[in-house]
Amino acid sequence: MKKVTVGIIGAGRIGQLHADNILRSGLFHLKSISDISIDHLKGTHLEQQVPVLTTQTDDILKDPEINAVFICSSTDTHVDFIKACAKAGKHIFCEKPISFHIEETKEALQVVQEAGVKFQVGFNRRFDKHFRKVFETVRAGKIGKPHILKITSRDPQAPDESYIQRSGGMFMDMTIHDFDMIRYLSGTEVAEVSVSAANLIDPKFKRNNDVDTAIITLTFEDGSLGVIDNSRQAVYGYDQRIEVFGDEGVVSAENERYTNVQISTKDSITVDHPKYFFLDRYKEAYVAEIAEFAKAILEEKPLSCSGEDGYKAELIALAAQLSWKEKRSVSLSELNAVAVK
Amino acid sequence: MKKVTVGIIGAGRIGQLHADNILRSGLFHLKSISDISIDHLKGTHLEQQVPVLTTQTDDILKDPEINAVFICSSTDTHVDFIKACAKAGKHIFCEKPISFHIEETKEALQVVQEAGVKFQVGFNRRFDKHFRKVFETVRAGKIGKPHILKITSRDPQAPDESYIQRSGGMFMDMTIHDFDMIRYLSGTEVAEVSVSAANLIDPKFKRNNDVDTAIITLTFEDGSLGVIDNSRQAVYGYDQRIEVFGDEGVVSAENERYTNVQISTKDSITVDHPKYFFLDRYKEAYVAEIAEFAKAILEEKPLSCSGEDGYKAELIALAAQLSWKEKRSVSLSELNAVAVK
Amino acid sequence: MKKVTVGIIGAGRIGQLHADNILRSGLFHLKSISDISIDHLKGTHLEQQVPVLTTQTDDILKDPEINAVFICSSTDTHVDFIKACAKAGKHIFCEKPISFHIEETKEALQVVQEAGVKFQVGFNRRFDKHFRKVFETVRAGKIGKPHILKITSRDPQAPDESYIQRSGGMFMDMTIHDFDMIRYLSGTEVAEVSVSAANLIDPKFKRNNDVDTAIITLTFEDGSLGVIDNSRQAVYGYDQRIEVFGDEGVVSAENERYTNVQISTKDSITVDHPKYFFLDRYKEAYVAEIAEFAKAILEEKPLSCSGEDGYKAELIALAAQLSWKEKRSVSLSELNAVAVK
Amino acid sequence: MKKVTVGIIGAGRIGQLHADNILRSGLFHLKSISDISIDHLKGTHLEQQVPVLTTQTDDILKDPEINAVFICSSTDTHVDFIKACAKAGKHIFCEKPISFHIEETKEALQVVQEAGVKFQVGFNRRFDKHFRKVFETVRAGKIGKPHILKITSRDPQAPDESYIQRSGGMFMDMTIHDFDMIRYLSGTEVAEVSVSAANLIDPKFKRNNDVDTAIITLTFEDGSLGVIDNSRQAVYGYDQRIEVFGDEGVVSAENERYTNVQISTKDSITVDHPKYFFLDRYKEAYVAEIAEFAKAILEEKPLSCSGEDGYKAELIALAAQLSWKEKRSVSLSELNAVAVK
Repeated sequence: MKKVTVGIIGAGRIGQLHADNILRSGLFHLKSISDISIDHLKGTHLEQQVPVLTTQTDDILKDPEINAVFICSSTDTHVDFIKACAKAGKHIFCEKPISFHIEETKEALQVVQEAGVKFQVGFNRRFDKHFRKVFETVRAGKIGKPHILKITSRDPQAPDESYIQRSGGMFMDMTIHDFDMIRYLSGTEVAEVSVSAANLIDPKFKRNNDVDTAIITLTFEDGSLGVIDNSRQAVYGYDQRIEVFGDEGVVSAENERYTNVQISTKDSITVDHPKYFFLDRYKEAYVAEIAEFAKAILEEKPLSCSGEDGYKAELIALAAQLSWKEKRSVSLSELNAVAVK
Repeated sequence: MKKVTVGIIGAGRIGQLHADNILRSGLFHLKSISDISIDHLKGTHLEQQVPVLTTQTDDILKDPEINAVFICSSTDTHVDFIKACAKAGKHIFCEKPISFHIEETKEALQVVQEAGVKFQVGFNRRFDKHFRKVFETVRAGKIGKPHILKITSRDPQAPDESYIQRSGGMFMDMTIHDFDMIRYLSGTEVAEVSVSAANLIDPKFKRNNDVDTAIITLTFEDGSLGVIDNSRQAVYGYDQRIEVFGDEGVVSAENERYTNVQISTKDSITVDHPKYFFLDRYKEAYVAEIAEFAKAILEEKPLSCSGEDGYKAELIALAAQLSWKEKRSVSLSELNAVAVK
Repeated sequence: MKKVTVGIIGAGRIGQLHADNILRSGLFHLKSISDISIDHLKGTHLEQQVPVLTTQTDDILKDPEINAVFICSSTDTHVDFIKACAKAGKHIFCEKPISFHIEETKEALQVVQEAGVKFQVGFNRRFDKHFRKVFETVRAGKIGKPHILKITSRDPQAPDESYIQRSGGMFMDMTIHDFDMIRYLSGTEVAEVSVSAANLIDPKFKRNNDVDTAIITLTFEDGSLGVIDNSRQAVYGYDQRIEVFGDEGVVSAENERYTNVQISTKDSITVDHPKYFFLDRYKEAYVAEIAEFAKAILEEKPLSCSGEDGYKAELIALAAQLSWKEKRSVSLSELNAVAVK
Repeated sequence: MKKVTVGIIGAGRIGQLHADNILRSGLFHLKSISDISIDHLKGTHLEQQVPVLTTQTDDILKDPEINAVFICSSTDTHVDFIKACAKAGKHIFCEKPISFHIEETKEALQVVQEAGVKFQVGFNRRFDKHFRKVFETVRAGKIGKPHILKITSRDPQAPDESYIQRSGGMFMDMTIHDFDMIRYLSGTEVAEVSVSAANLIDPKFKRNNDVDTAIITLTFEDGSLGVIDNSRQAVYGYDQRIEVFGDEGVVSAENERYTNVQISTKDSITVDHPKYFFLDRYKEAYVAEIAEFAKAILEEKPLSCSGEDGYKAELIALAAQLSWKEKRSVSLSELNAVAVK
């Protein structure tokens, strides 16, 4: 069985997650991991199982055995690594968002296209079995033509202030997943974005010019409507629900709970909490997304989550930021014009 | 046991519904029903049980035995009947909306206030046991301070074109219930309204300058956010769900299904549909709302749904109409100023 | 519209419940209520609405206007009243069980048959909308041929010792409903009964030679199996669930909760309790059963719950008592032989 | 990190499942797999990853590097392999049932005890997260003292006739899992077993002197009751539910569905099927059970599923067989006496 030989750039939480999934997948040979600081991997199972741990990205880029690279470093470094990987002829799996600057994202994807390498962006939720079934139900026409697409997406716990500062803002960091999901489900493009947002959770958001709570309304090119509600802190757990309402029905996905156990007493009837941590909630989706990446390379299959998808989600995030700041609806065509410049 | 002697103005569907509930309640003596055409009640149980069926409203207004009047006629007649009833010293239960013209509503309520009679508006959903429990959960502080209030409100079937023409438009006819519910749940006032609406179901809405699908975002005076999604046609049944998300939790009410039966076969696992017809879905709520009205009169208890509530829901509906037409956020203060003139 | 003129014998809790439903139904004229002690109805709405309140049963039996009688007195008086009513040509609605002595039940039903009057036994659960839908699903063949029929039936609170003493024992008092339901669902007759029972809740059951917890296994004549689990005390509420498993699927009815509200906090996700009180749980069923009785009389329609159904449920209860006492399986044919004597 | 070096005896479906889990666990070094016929593993990933594939069990038993053995061969070979492994000083993980002959099971466990090796039996369901939570809820006293323990356990599809012939019968092959689970949940021992069973699915069961449908009632030593309902064919999927009812509440685990997606149309409201295949339903449990086995060896932790548990489940299965054949309740003490001989 042929395998894809890969390197990982960036050995933080998400880099390590991908490393573990890569090792267990049977589809990859994980040859190298690079990070500006790599010492924290010493003495771990990764040191035992990965031949090369390095602080030099070139050890990956210049390694002829390596077919593909996972870019898991901080967002501000993505664009440079994408260009370098593309030029080195490596297929690319890049974490979201591609960058904080839409023109740079555009440029990077241009380089990718010219190099003719595969490019997948890490929108893991597209690979969640519940959401995938919603997608398939919509595509199969079972609920007819979509009229209203709804996403509830709430993090269990607000991030640290240092994270907020380098996050690119809630829309670019968190809602970007929802922007991608709603495009994915809709099958048509967003035309207009309108945001109502607030600071209700913690002053740390406001003092960093960010929001913590928002309702984002989207109008699609076919006239259908979308709405996303976000919160940075849902104390009862990670709240991830979607619903697509159409002229022949509605399909929805509920939260995934820890167990299906119900406890009934005189005082209360309780069921289990939604899974709290995103790595737990989307555990299987992270496994599935890299399998698709491997198959795209090994079997020349198409990717369901491309660079263009990454670009478009960023564009919507940008429109949302603008809508929030200028308190008005923002048309995507307006931004496309900007981005093209 | 003392009872309230009542007359009903308007013998259409909702008038007959109230008549039946009044007859069964044990709290009222139903003396008279008036309608410009009353023949359709001939030969029914109402003819047997109601002493006076008349085409003359004065038979009700001038009857000294009658303490209270249910106004169930078409909306354009409400204001005149309200004023007449108030001047005649009758307590008033008025169907929603009070009127299509906010200044007229204001005037009518002024007359009511001067007459010192009780006034309840027919926002039946406040009396639904599911929504009432959500309300009580929020008021008891169990989910902390509300951050996001969500209502899904979708009719099972689009109305006839003739109904659309005299409905006052979707926001005034249908969403007005949701505007009242969201104010009720929030406990604070709406500051701003922003609408994205569409014509996706049937051209009959567009040709009557109305919409059939909408997402309405609301900002409350305390900074919290609300969102309502509406459709005039949910083929799977009457979809009525609410959710209040706060800093200490979330409370939600699901649809009421016909039964709790599940059928599992090789081909499918099916559960029952949500109740389809609003008179069925809110059957108990219609009973509960008139019981509160009776008790307010007999025991001098406060009403949970006043003329002011009717007025404020109309004001929000007006803002929604304006937001939709002018494609911008509309502040309630802007409209209040207009209404005061 | 023609109505059935009725009298009620027995003005206890269940007699009053039927009285209220009869008054509200529009199908009956409630002329008389008799009880050996009737003073507790003085000053109530029943005194206002029922022409005759009497201590003399003959005031009902000899009243030529009265077409039908509801027998709601204590079980030990049923048989005499049934015979008297039948001989007086009155249709009969009799509460369960018909009697504690199977031969007497048989005799009473013989008199009913000879008199040619209608006879319905108060197995209210057959009229519950959830269970009715299960029944209809089974009859429509949607789950194929039934293989396993399951009933969970647990009371919320153990009865008083005085009630236990005159109850006829758990099988005759409580499980009799389940025996009827399982026959109703199965559509075939019980052939054999096997009981495992215990005293786990309160010594008052044991000292009255009764049980409080039981698992009853039934074999039907067609070879299919049934199982009922009973408890006299489910602290979380009245637990009433059924399931029919067949060769093409399974159909089940869950408990009816107070509301469909869910509350999620950091500490717990709670849903509402099942309805606690049987009069609340089966409120609509009590209304439906008397409507069927009225229609059987007025429109000569067949009854879905006959004297024979009452007899057969008693026979199974008897078999269960014997199985428990003699610690063995008991065949119904064995008892039929006894009963026939 | 220390690992357990293991060999697997038996390379059928369950042997291969354990092999994969062992390879992925990080807790084991999988050195050898033996089977009388091993050719089917040639060319698979197992050939690449497992150093020794052999037809000779001795290659495992005599390998001093191997600490522990997984016995995954056919049931009739278990006892010999257990004794051989124990004498060779290998820790043992043995699939269920230990054997079809209770005296041989007893003997084998005696040898294990004398050898002082660890022994775990493959009751995978104890490691299911849903059932584990039920267990923990009961142990924590949250539902008080258990009164009724219920298990619904239905296979999706009847096995082939050849499987039926060597299965040991439904009670020993299938219900044995439920016997173990009910003991596990109860925390007390079964005193008496009473079976009602039937042939309703396919004549192939009857002609092999086996049943396909059963209700098994158990009385525990503390007087509490248990009931298991089994079917060899639930066309809607693998039906695995448990419920423990006690004097302070009830705890239950529902089926695990493929997804949490609901689809509502005019015609139906559907949810997803329960997982169909046992390897899919208990996927995580199979991973968890071998992790516990590894930790018991590496960290000298106690096992939650011992040889005694395997023995006792067999004893109950034996009692069930006897109860079915002799149509009577069977006391475990009666069988213990036999087994001791």
